[in-house]
Amino acid sequence: MTKSELISSIFDNKSYLCVGLDPDMGRLPKCLMDCEDPIFEFNRAIIEATKDYCIAYKPNLAFYEAHGAKGWESLEKTMQVIPKDKFTIADAKRGDIGNTSRLYAQTFFDQLNFDAVTVAPYMGEDSVKPFLSFNDKWVILLALTSNVGANDFQMLETKQGNYLYQQVLEKSQCWAGDDQIMYVVGANKPEALAAIREMVPNHFLLVPGVGAQGGDLREISLAALNKECGLLVNASRSIIYASSDTDFAAAAREEAKKLQVGMAEILQQIS
Amino acid sequence: MTKSELISSIFDNKSYLCVGLDPDMGRLPKCLMDCEDPIFEFNRAIIEATKDYCIAYKPNLAFYEAHGAKGWESLEKTMQVIPKDKFTIADAKRGDIGNTSRLYAQTFFDQLNFDAVTVAPYMGEDSVKPFLSFNDKWVILLALTSNVGANDFQMLETKQGNYLYQQVLEKSQCWAGDDQIMYVVGANKPEALAAIREMVPNHFLLVPGVGAQGGDLREISLAALNKECGLLVNASRSIIYASSDTDFAAAAREEAKKLQVGMAEILQQIS
Repeated sequence: MTKSELISSIFDNKSYLCVGLDPDMGRLPKCLMDCEDPIFEFNRAIIEATKDYCIAYKPNLAFYEAHGAKGWESLEKTMQVIPKDKFTIADAKRGDIGNTSRLYAQTFFDQLNFDAVTVAPYMGEDSVKPFLSFNDKWVILLALTSNVGANDFQMLETKQGNYLYQQVLEKSQCWAGDDQIMYVVGANKPEALAAIREMVPNHFLLVPGVGAQGGDLREISLAALNKECGLLVNASRSIIYASSDTDFAAAAREEAKKLQVGMAEILQQIS
Repeated sequence: MTKSELISSIFDNKSYLCVGLDPDMGRLPKCLMDCEDPIFEFNRAIIEATKDYCIAYKPNLAFYEAHGAKGWESLEKTMQVIPKDKFTIADAKRGDIGNTSRLYAQTFFDQLNFDAVTVAPYMGEDSVKPFLSFNDKWVILLALTSNVGANDFQMLETKQGNYLYQQVLEKSQCWAGDDQIMYVVGANKPEALAAIREMVPNHFLLVPGVGAQGGDLREISLAALNKECGLLVNASRSIIYASSDTDFAAAAREEAKKLQVGMAEILQQIS
């Protein structure tokens, strides 16, 4: 998906919500447990219930790999039921030497047909570049994550006078433009979000951590929206586990709708 | 596998060779292409041919995920034919927020029964800790990798006066001991290897980059051996693609043997 298609989708749907498809077998509704593929049936119901309110879906690979070959099949089937106009993100946090990163890129872009992959920057340019050689596909580079451990290295001050995550933002802008790279920035860091927006005025930011992880939608948005929106806000657990009963899909729909209504109001202020 | 079992295996077998199982469909011998599962048959032949000369195997996940569910099955079958006394490393370079890292850890340790997983440090302590809560299982943390991109961030000077990779070595030593953490250090950096050995005198180092990537076994070993050996030297392409013909297994055996003979000589000097 191109950047202009993504922006159109956001303003057409009045939403910049990404729904995280992180199906944890221990938390799935009991009513699905007799299905042949509970993970896929859960995802299908969640997608059907939320598709009117979101513009992107983000499966985290860990939840599929946990079930081996069967989990991988659940992921493939899930990708087939996501509507074609949704932006899809493989939350895989990969990154390896060049020939190996190329294989990961082929897997997620060519075979599974994702629009984007999250990539860890630690191994540098040649570990990220192979993901950037696909048309209309995206790298979403980890910059400043929402977990406590972000302080260990991402917030280390460098000799250049800024933090490591700012070095990641700076250097990676030489690798490709804002039509191919986005950045992950945690929702629990609104001051940092505003500073990051100054450094990368035109890039999309993927902001996880709204909902279960505690980030506030309005605060995040005011800190980091740009005139093209420039934000994908992800919620996973607060939506997909809104109820653990037979009404789980309806409850997920309500949670997604709440966030979308908030987003529609916020978007109105910039259009 | 415990640290003392690993050390015994090294001195009993007079080898610290790890064979990288990175089966690239484009490079497999043609004679295997009619098999139902060429990747598994290739791995089985390579394992049978090299097991007398190595003490560890390291499949890189990218080469299996590239084939979806079928690739995952090839990996599961491969794990079953690796002799039980070999140390097994999932070269996955994972790392995510806590609850997600925990799932990855369960996948590689409990389900696939690997002894170790490579982990990227960018997300910090709470992304690595879940991998450290399994008995006799190991995290192999990326420190200084063999690719050019290692210069981008790993070699950034921090305000503390040392490099980022040295900060990774320093901080991670507070997370667990040398019986649970190893470090990845590229074979093309012998001076750095010697400096790293000073910082972590007792940790095992996993050193990829011998063979196809150009690292010299003797130089590496003299720079970084300790009295318990403390090294796992990995070779992938130079062994597994030593021949692309029907004699591929015999050729792999010869290449593995060459390295093992070199290692036996070097080990003699420290025992």
